[in-house]
Amino acid sequence: MSVLVNFAIFPLDKGESVSQYVARAVKIIKDSGLPCNLGPMGTSIEGEWDEVMMAVTRCFEALTKDCDRIYFTIAGDYRKKGKDRITAKVESVEGKL
Amino acid sequence: MSVLVNFAIFPLDKGESVSQYVARAVKIIKDSGLPCNLGPMGTSIEGEWDEVMMAVTRCFEALTKDCDRIYFTIAGDYRKKGKDRITAKVESVEGKL
Amino acid sequence: MSVLVNFAIFPLDKGESVSQYVARAVKIIKDSGLPCNLGPMGTSIEGEWDEVMMAVTRCFEALTKDCDRIYFTIAGDYRKKGKDRITAKVESVEGKL
Amino acid sequence: MSVLVNFAIFPLDKGESVSQYVARAVKIIKDSGLPCNLGPMGTSIEGEWDEVMMAVTRCFEALTKDCDRIYFTIAGDYRKKGKDRITAKVESVEGKL
Repeated sequence: MSVLVNFAIFPLDKGESVSQYVARAVKIIKDSGLPCNLGPMGTSIEGEWDEVMMAVTRCFEALTKDCDRIYFTIAGDYRKKGKDRITAKVESVEGKL
Repeated sequence: MSVLVNFAIFPLDKGESVSQYVARAVKIIKDSGLPCNLGPMGTSIEGEWDEVMMAVTRCFEALTKDCDRIYFTIAGDYRKKGKDRITAKVESVEGKL
Repeated sequence: MSVLVNFAIFPLDKGESVSQYVARAVKIIKDSGLPCNLGPMGTSIEGEWDEVMMAVTRCFEALTKDCDRIYFTIAGDYRKKGKDRITAKVESVEGKL
Repeated sequence: MSVLVNFAIFPLDKGESVSQYVARAVKIIKDSGLPCNLGPMGTSIEGEWDEVMMAVTRCFEALTKDCDRIYFTIAGDYRKKGKDRITAKVESVEGKL
């Protein structure tokens, strides 16, 4: 049951610049080995539900170490017959432009 | 590490009316015993990270049984010192209106 | 073309407690006269697209006065034949539990 | 008051394949001339608040022509001193990996 998600996470108690905390999460996602893509408003991740949620959980835990307030969003898209959707979805739309 | 989330999930391949699928998810959330609140654009759930993610996972699995495409969103807010935030956050804002 | 949205907005540069800024936005939404419902993870608003977007725009402008970084999310649901959906959607799901 | 958003929009009443509708929205965004970036879970757009909301509004109107139910999400990030953030944010995070 492979899913594709866009995941964003950041602290609210660290002031205006939060890129070091975002980088900490992105490193964990990259180290998971799952196909991923860093964008300006979140990181896309593709994988089995449990794998993706495990990566997200590790990011959350890594930020709770020194952040007192954290906001995160996960938007997900599951398609039974989908495969390599992290690239296929964009190609499908571009092919129709 | 208690979190508060707003969770929405629905199929894309079942046509315009999806309330029976939403109800299936809401029933699972209510049966989890976690504090929750059904709203017009999602269900708020409060609990330990693992408990909340377990409830969300069960909702997802329940929909994959007969849905071929599913969309979901989870927006979450963690606060180290927070407690009973599913009611306290609204009260805090209302107290400042 | 009536829409139902869940809207959340908050600053990132004001520290952990942001309820006074959220209250400022909620006051603007209430003053718009549109049907709305304050929840723990955002405010639901129903109305014509332009009315809802005008209210959201006023909230954004009100926060830019003294906030240097602002995050916001709008999740929306449009249904051609829908009416009073801010209450009807919840009732429809509860009727199926 | 320049903002950066991630915008996703799709119909619920057109079955499992929605890329032709997504492409219709992406074309409108590209035609707006605003800096944008198509990703697997939405399109990032940068511009003045009114410009971005105008592009989003045109996408919504284009889908209401033949869709009876539409879902959309807008996640936005405003930073007073920000500039060219659609590329700068990713570079800032990558520089910290």
